[in-house]
Amino acid sequence: MPTPASSADTPPLTAASHRPRVVVIGAGFGGLAAVRGLRHAPVEVTVVDRTNHHLFQPLVYQVATGLLSPGEIAPALRKILRRQHNTAVLLAEATDVDLTDRHIQVLEADGTTRAIGYDYLVVAAGSHDSYFGHDDWAEHLYPMKTLTEALGLRDQILRAYERATECGDPAGRARWTTFVIVGAGPTGVEIAGQLVALTRELREELHRDDSSPARIILIDALSEVLSTFPPTLRAHAHQRLTAMGVQILLDTRADAVDAAGITVKATDGHTERIDTHTVIWAAGVHASPLAATLAHAAGIDIDHKGRVPVQRNCSLTGHPEVFVIGDMANLHDLPGLSAPAIQEGRYVAKVLHHRTVGKPTPGPFTYRDRGTMATISARDAIADIYGVKLHGRLGKLAWAAVHISFLVGWGNRVGVLARWAFLLGSRTRSERVILTSIHADHAGPAHSPSGPTADR
Amino acid sequence: MPTPASSADTPPLTAASHRPRVVVIGAGFGGLAAVRGLRHAPVEVTVVDRTNHHLFQPLVYQVATGLLSPGEIAPALRKILRRQHNTAVLLAEATDVDLTDRHIQVLEADGTTRAIGYDYLVVAAGSHDSYFGHDDWAEHLYPMKTLTEALGLRDQILRAYERATECGDPAGRARWTTFVIVGAGPTGVEIAGQLVALTRELREELHRDDSSPARIILIDALSEVLSTFPPTLRAHAHQRLTAMGVQILLDTRADAVDAAGITVKATDGHTERIDTHTVIWAAGVHASPLAATLAHAAGIDIDHKGRVPVQRNCSLTGHPEVFVIGDMANLHDLPGLSAPAIQEGRYVAKVLHHRTVGKPTPGPFTYRDRGTMATISARDAIADIYGVKLHGRLGKLAWAAVHISFLVGWGNRVGVLARWAFLLGSRTRSERVILTSIHADHAGPAHSPSGPTADR
Repeated sequence: MPTPASSADTPPLTAASHRPRVVVIGAGFGGLAAVRGLRHAPVEVTVVDRTNHHLFQPLVYQVATGLLSPGEIAPALRKILRRQHNTAVLLAEATDVDLTDRHIQVLEADGTTRAIGYDYLVVAAGSHDSYFGHDDWAEHLYPMKTLTEALGLRDQILRAYERATECGDPAGRARWTTFVIVGAGPTGVEIAGQLVALTRELREELHRDDSSPARIILIDALSEVLSTFPPTLRAHAHQRLTAMGVQILLDTRADAVDAAGITVKATDGHTERIDTHTVIWAAGVHASPLAATLAHAAGIDIDHKGRVPVQRNCSLTGHPEVFVIGDMANLHDLPGLSAPAIQEGRYVAKVLHHRTVGKPTPGPFTYRDRGTMATISARDAIADIYGVKLHGRLGKLAWAAVHISFLVGWGNRVGVLARWAFLLGSRTRSERVILTSIHADHAGPAHSPSGPTADR
Repeated sequence: MPTPASSADTPPLTAASHRPRVVVIGAGFGGLAAVRGLRHAPVEVTVVDRTNHHLFQPLVYQVATGLLSPGEIAPALRKILRRQHNTAVLLAEATDVDLTDRHIQVLEADGTTRAIGYDYLVVAAGSHDSYFGHDDWAEHLYPMKTLTEALGLRDQILRAYERATECGDPAGRARWTTFVIVGAGPTGVEIAGQLVALTRELREELHRDDSSPARIILIDALSEVLSTFPPTLRAHAHQRLTAMGVQILLDTRADAVDAAGITVKATDGHTERIDTHTVIWAAGVHASPLAATLAHAAGIDIDHKGRVPVQRNCSLTGHPEVFVIGDMANLHDLPGLSAPAIQEGRYVAKVLHHRTVGKPTPGPFTYRDRGTMATISARDAIADIYGVKLHGRLGKLAWAAVHISFLVGWGNRVGVLARWAFLLGSRTRSERVILTSIHADHAGPAHSPSGPTADR
């Protein structure tokens, strides 16, 4: 089969090559939804991601605390898409977009760069942690956005307890068993709750009379935990966390972070030093630098979160063939959650499908807000579903049902459900392997908050 | 409670400090069996390991091929021993033994060294891969003894398929999809069988017309695969592997290994070059350097595998308070398998228990050989149990039953069994995350074939 020159750069596909080429950057919630939405469309899809998996980010904290294994929340992209024959997967980093020539630049695993031409482009490269301009904090912080970061945090928590046992002086021990979480949104609250359970188990296993409970401190610049939730649920979460022993510092932000601790500053100007080796970052994010690249090329400005303002059909101003979705896009200032990203991905796939078969394209994108939820402990979660407010066991049940249904792949659903069921009855936090050398002092992941990326 | 000066170096224990101090180096099969055997003994046990987990080595190949998660075959030591209150766990590397002053030297996670005194010492530091004097091969080989090594091999196999898809020329693609396994014992045969299954899945997922099946080559210096098995079972395994597409080169050894391939040499002098980026080492092992340290101090010689010859009760010549067990010890030249190590560990625990309560100590150690087994594919294994020879599905059933029963912890047993059951029905090779950067060319583990260690 002769290959037209225009597609020489894309991997050969089994589908005929005269079909429109759709390139999707990023296989997070938005990108994967777009790719899957195109499964019956007469197009050739190439999805580019710099990891080989789709990460189910809402459960990353359970990998960081040893409950779930990496594979259970991160199925291989090729496996997810194995029956989708119009789609090729490319493990590479998208570094640039040329809107005029309609191609993207990718850096492949072998270190070579190449151009991949497109007829339609969907950019869903997500966001990365932002330290409010303090890039020097990065080496002392444990973020938890990627799987590598989650495993780095897991190693640190487990190693902290090993180091504490070696410590002769109580102050040294306390520093290892103090954990500060910056950001009291769902991620911060969920990791705080799990840290309570994990550190209790670790402490019991030490068989020592002289060990103290872990200090778990949750700080937030706002005056409430879970500020996007209704007041009654916020109050429930606050009360439960406090009862579990979590210290909550509100109206407080990180002022300085170093290897030995964090200095926090309250809005009233009061500062406090907390000695700790483990500061977990669950606060600000910033859109992928590809957002700025696209905005610049289109002659528009990014917003304060680094996002590209997009048209009502998620397309880039002046470029109806380019779509930007998820955390990177600013459409009605929707929050950076999985739900808007998934809905945008599905919507864009529908637009493209209709366009390629000559059907009338759908109207502007509208977001259906089904609600929001956050887990607090093994038997407690808060949930606001279509305005119905749940907490306690009922909330947890709703939380578990929704999370299981959104996991990709039946094998993973059954596996995760089994682990959770076990957990209620006994102690099955089974993923507790320290992967890095015990002599590594800070084995946190390679932080790369800057540089063009195709992460999510 | 005042602490006697003699135990100031050991971590405080809840048990009274006047009890005899037993130090166990290594928490592999032998060491863990010894520790657990001492659970009711009136002693204070300290177990030293440089990892935080007990590794179930017979299933390491299933982690390397994405079937099982690390935690499923490597429970945390502290969790295994959480109810054993006479035992403290120390995450550290045992670097030396002073038989005269009766203490060991350990290198702790914080980089400090300290001495730990003992009344009784059990050394079960295991063995590491030996490249027959070719230490320069190490950087090009993928060993699979530790969990880190298994994950390094997994990354390499998965990345090889990604790299193959980028390759323009067929020779380059073939080099990435060729896998050479050195050593056709159980480990080599088991990884070969799983590689057939894994590479078939990976190839199907590429959606390309131009991909070829993987080349999987198994070499061994002997003239048979699985040379320790009865002839009929050997023949069955050889025939099945060949039918599955594995190329078997017998009477052949590695002659040179580099980044681009391996040169093999047959006993008749014929040499052959095989282009590959993945050479898996499943051949020789050498005892931990602590064996030489002990032998030297006791005035005896190590054998050609680096092992210490021990007395019939597993004790070191001239040192009835020191025991050496497992891969490090030469007692009747028993093979380096889990069964002798476990039986020796239990035996030594019994000797120590009896000695500390004044009961007559048991007679010399005797090994009960219950048999041997190796798996070939999802539905085929060979087993020789008390002389009963099984193969095919019946062999696999026996294999699965024995492996499940020897796993540590009920949670892991149920988890692994569930994964296996799933696997028979569908494709649930779910642990396929590439953990290292896609731009790492050789992300194999930090090979450290030399230097005193407390591995197994």
